[in-house]
This record gives sequence, C-alpha cells and structure tokens, in this order.
Amino acid sequence: MAFPPNSDKERPNVNDDQQRITTLKTKMKAEEVSLTLLAGTDAMRYLTGWREGGHERFVGLFVPQDEEQRAAFVVPAMNAPQALKTPAEVSEVFGWSDESGWYTEVQTLFSRYEVDSGSVVLIDDELLSVHLLAMQSLFPGVRFAPAGRMMASLRQIKTASELASMERAALLIDEIFEATVIQLKAGINEMEMREIILQEMKRRNTSPSFSPLVCFGANAALPHHHTGTTTLKGGDVVILDLGCVWEHYASDITRTVCFGTPSDPDAAKVYEIVYRAHSAVMENVKPGTSGERADRFARDVITKAEYGEFFVHRTGHGIGLSTHEPPYIVEGNHEPLLPGMCFSDEPGIYLPGRFGVRIENIVTMTETGLRSLNTPPSPTLRTIGL
Amino acid sequence: MAFPPNSDKERPNVNDDQQRITTLKTKMKAEEVSLTLLAGTDAMRYLTGWREGGHERFVGLFVPQDEEQRAAFVVPAMNAPQALKTPAEVSEVFGWSDESGWYTEVQTLFSRYEVDSGSVVLIDDELLSVHLLAMQSLFPGVRFAPAGRMMASLRQIKTASELASMERAALLIDEIFEATVIQLKAGINEMEMREIILQEMKRRNTSPSFSPLVCFGANAALPHHHTGTTTLKGGDVVILDLGCVWEHYASDITRTVCFGTPSDPDAAKVYEIVYRAHSAVMENVKPGTSGERADRFARDVITKAEYGEFFVHRTGHGIGLSTHEPPYIVEGNHEPLLPGMCFSDEPGIYLPGRFGVRIENIVTMTETGLRSLNTPPSPTLRTIGL
Repeated sequence: MAFPPNSDKERPNVNDDQQRITTLKTKMKAEEVSLTLLAGTDAMRYLTGWREGGHERFVGLFVPQDEEQRAAFVVPAMNAPQALKTPAEVSEVFGWSDESGWYTEVQTLFSRYEVDSGSVVLIDDELLSVHLLAMQSLFPGVRFAPAGRMMASLRQIKTASELASMERAALLIDEIFEATVIQLKAGINEMEMREIILQEMKRRNTSPSFSPLVCFGANAALPHHHTGTTTLKGGDVVILDLGCVWEHYASDITRTVCFGTPSDPDAAKVYEIVYRAHSAVMENVKPGTSGERADRFARDVITKAEYGEFFVHRTGHGIGLSTHEPPYIVEGNHEPLLPGMCFSDEPGIYLPGRFGVRIENIVTMTETGLRSLNTPPSPTLRTIGL
Repeated sequence: MAFPPNSDKERPNVNDDQQRITTLKTKMKAEEVSLTLLAGTDAMRYLTGWREGGHERFVGLFVPQDEEQRAAFVVPAMNAPQALKTPAEVSEVFGWSDESGWYTEVQTLFSRYEVDSGSVVLIDDELLSVHLLAMQSLFPGVRFAPAGRMMASLRQIKTASELASMERAALLIDEIFEATVIQLKAGINEMEMREIILQEMKRRNTSPSFSPLVCFGANAALPHHHTGTTTLKGGDVVILDLGCVWEHYASDITRTVCFGTPSDPDAAKVYEIVYRAHSAVMENVKPGTSGERADRFARDVITKAEYGEFFVHRTGHGIGLSTHEPPYIVEGNHEPLLPGMCFSDEPGIYLPGRFGVRIENIVTMTETGLRSLNTPPSPTLRTIGL
C-alpha cells in the first residue's frame, strides 16, 4: 500500500476546526457552562488542530460560552509562535514566562469572560491536578467540573473525513501485523519483536499510537503485561496488541496466535470462545444498543462457556484522536451507540500462569449495524510455523 | 562503552523503596498530612519501584501518615498481579473492575485511614483532574493539596546509587551525541536525523527519556520546535536536544553546532555568549545558592550582551526519574541548591526567523560546587564538515 508520507504537519481542514469551537459554545449555552478549559491534549487538538503537552508547564485553551468573546490560548511564551499558527486560527494567545508564571493571564481571562462565584467551568479530564488545585485556590467560588462528557458528545461521532483517516490507520495496522507475525521465531524475545513491529511501522511512514504489547506464553495471561525479555518457544500462545496513527487518528488491533502446536490443551478451545464473543458483538449490536448491552453480548458468551471470571476487563473503548476515548463498552454505560461512533470489540480470557487470548478489531456503527475497519480475525487459533 | 543490557526489570533495591515510604510518613507527620495519594507516575516509581500510567483508568498509591497503617494500591484488577510484585512489597492491593469502578475501594481506604472533614490529603501533581474532581465530590470536607513540594523534598537529593545511574545515562548520551552529530549531511531532514539518534540509542541498549528534538536553521529559534521535514543545508545552525535513561534515571543534553560555515554572521558570537552564560552557572553556583540566583548568573551574562529578551526560558530544571522535576533554576525559586541535587544548566538565545543557540549539561551539586555529569561543551561554535 503506497500512502504519502505521514508528516508532522497539522490537519489542513481549517473550517472543521472553527466549526467545532462554535458547536462547543452552543452546547455550553444549553448546559449553562461559562467556560471550558482544555489542556494540551487530544481535546485541544480536536478543537484547534494543535496539541502541545507542555510537560509540567501550564498549557490551556479557554473557550468562553459568550458568542461575542473569542477563545484564547494561555501557553508558555516559547510556544506562543506555534499557538498562533493553529488551523483553528485562535488569534488570542497569551504567552507566560517562566519568571512570572501563568496565574495573571488566567485571572485576566476569567475576568474578561465574567467567570465568577457560581459560574460553571469545565476542565479537561487530563489537566494535571496541580494546575486544577491552583485554579481552585485562585477562584474559590467557581464550580469546576469534568469536561469529558461534553467533549465526548462532540468527538465520539466521527465525520467522513475522520473516518477516512481511521480506515487508513486500520488498513495500515492490518498490513503491519501480517508483516510482523511471520517474523516470530524460536528464541526471539518480546522486546526484539516489539522492535520489529516499530520498524515495520516506520517503513510505512507511520508511528505507534501506543507502545506495542508483545506477550509470550504465560505473559499473555496479563492483559497489561510489560513487554520484556521473555523468549519465544514452541507451543507458546502469543498476543500482539498494536496500533498506529494516520493524520493523528489511531488504530488498535489485537491478535492471538500460537507458535507451533499449542502446548496448552485448552488454547484452541479458549480461542474459539473468545472469537464467538467477539462475533456476538459484531452481529448483535445495532444503532441504539447501549454500551452496557454491547458488553453483555460478549460477556454472555464467555460466561456461558464458564470462563466469565477470566474476562477481567470491559469489552471495548472508543477510539479516534485518542486511542482510548468514549464511548466505553462497559457495564454501567447506558448511552446508546450511534452511527459514526468508533470503538474496539476486544473480549479476552486470561488464565493465570498458563496463557491468554484477546481478539480486537476497531468497528464503526453504520445505519444498519457494525462494520469492522480491520480485516476479520481468524475464527480458529492460527499457528505460525516453527 | 560496554554496559549490560538495560532491561525492563524494576530496580532490585528493595530496602531503598521501603525506607522511602517510611521517610515520607515522617514528613507527613511533621506537616499534619493524613494521606498522600500518588498516581501511576514517577513519584509512584520513586516510592515503590513500579509505575503504571493506567491511561484513563485510575491507579493510586495511598500512603497514610499513621505508622500502624500500611500503604495500599488501588489499581485496575488486571494490574493487580503487577502491583503485588513491586520492590517495595506493598502487600495491600485493591483491584477494581471496569464494571464497578474504583470509588468503593477509595472510600474503604479513606475510612480505614480515618481521613475525614478537615483532613489534609496530598495529591500527586500529575493525577488527572477527572480523578481529583471525583474525589472532591466523594469527600467534600477533605482538604486536597498538591504533593509536589513534599515529594520534591524526598526526591531532589540523590543517593549515591541514584547518582551512579544518572552518570551512566549522562555518559551514554554524550557518546550517542558524538555518534550522531557526525552523521549530519546535506539534504537530510529533521525526522531522519531523529531516527538516527534513536537507532544509536538502541544500539547501546538504552531508550529516549523524551522524543529527541532536532532543529535545523530558523527552526532552532523555537525552543520547543516540533521535529519535522525541514532539510539541512550548508550554513544552518543545528540544535540537538536529546536524553536517554539508565535504570529509569534520565539524562538530557543540548548541543548547538553549525553545518559548514554559518550563514548568519552572528552565529559564532551568539554561541560564545551562551557558552559564557552556561559557564557562569558552573563557576558561581555553590551549595546554598538559590535557584533564582543560579538563574541570574546565566541571565546576567546574556542581558549584558544585549540579548536578554531572546533568552525566553528558565536556566534549568531538576532531573532524576523524571526528565523535568524540582529544583527549577528560575526566578522566584528561593530554595537553596544542596549537595546531591541534579539539574540542567541550559541557557539559550533564540533569534526569530534566524537561528537559536542552547547549551545544556546536567550538573550535580557537590560540597564545593557544581560538577558536570556530561563532558564539557565546546567553548566555540563547532562546525561539522559539509
């Protein structure tokens, strides 16, 4: 597949970005929110086309409800030139210096926007607590609340252009998986295998959306195993969990294979249970199904097969600019899944000390049901030759 | 240099980790803090030998002041096996499930530790705001405050063993810089150069402490330039800012060189001013000098040379498990710099649209003054042959 280079340039779609800030303001008005403050995260990228973490330094995008008032950045002085050039053309940029800090600039904006006692200010879920605590001290009467739900209401339904980026990222990761899995060989260790994955990404002008997970043998029983120095031997179950980005949009798949004939007699059977759980979501979830109900379609299959206690995580997470974002496919999420939403379908069974199986594709909701952005997983445990 | 492989294994020094929790409790008692809550950050790694970000999932280490009470982890159920095996041997691990969430476990701990209205709870600076806001709702009378200052009081003075790791990381990055800089060539772009740096790290069994910055020509005038597709041409000033880790401890250096004869007539002069500013810190800062005064030693040199307005950041930052941590070498930091502290000495001058110069070494305070962990920078602008 020949794609043009995936450069560090920001998305060119200026109109989208400006429209997003306008849409946010409309929603803020409906919920009587005075101000939304986003940190240098994917939420900021969603609204402006730019993100800059700032490490420990404060980076904020201030979006007031008032239509007459413009959004503004408060950023370290050295990032001010970058903030001025975002696709959303936020022309108000306050650069703060290391000498004087950022409090004065934030006070100026709160005053300009008439944010005062009793006002509701939504805060980026990922803003560092040290910055939130400072703001709570500066503005003791203001009611700070998480911005996550409101930002999700904007971000979780993807536009055609966003979907196109996600499809490319998905096709790329499928190709990278195929190029990688055939390189499994006796004695290779997990970190070496991760390196091969990263090199295959580089060859295709893409980069990881998260550090690839490589789990050999009993390590596959740990859903968040830290890729290490364990070496591969015949009969090992192998979990590879990998994703890449295209125009800042993420992909994320998990495949479970066996290196030679499984040494554990239950590996093939467990794989097929997980496959059926994965398929149950694909087949049964329709527009309007809740996240909780979608989770249960997978969980019921695994519970009926008497492995329920070994399915130790939710069935899926939304994905977009962030690898994990709403909607979550989990007990307790009563929100309906709607056309345009994208999320993972990734049930798993983890048998401590033995092996684990997880199968993950990214799916998108259409008018009629789910469509996978990735190629379908194998219905049976695939073996890779010794 | 032949070092053993830098594996993903955690530090083996169990006694250090247990001692650190005890020391923290002593300090908490002196300041009447009931509980310190650390997120899955370097602060957690400092106390336990383990860190696990958890992405959007809540990960917490709860350290009560009460000597009779034990510290406890609250982590996603799937991370519980890892939490049980930390070098600090924190044996209380509460795993929470995606179905039920983490509130119950935290309520149980607050109740067990008798944290109630009026109690002071210190919060990891980097805990996500969404988690802090949830806790403030659960425990409305509790006084939450940032843990940064107290954690700094433990972390900023390095032990001999920590210093040894930092020295290795520093020597490695010096070697990687030398291996890299000679690979500059006409037409190479910044991202390709970054790739070379990463490969040189890999060859030495180390990994980056942050994504290396490569700035060619006018891009060097942006202290936090995003490494991109700009290509190198004769006469360009080049800034390379890179660091690696050894046993989780970070290094961080910046070098400015010129590719051939500088096209800007002021490049050599500006370099020498920055070098003198860097040296002024090395020579004048002694045990007890404040962070602010250290900053001024560098700033005065640059201001006297009439480039003060172009030195747009603080002179330095502390370094250890985190690449940026206290002490900060900045106006307003009145705390004394003491033996065992490690920080960067990195003045810079940035001329928009033209070029920039930054020189950075990591230094440690000894009983008599500063000692550099890195080899000294060139006193004059080094040119790399076309």
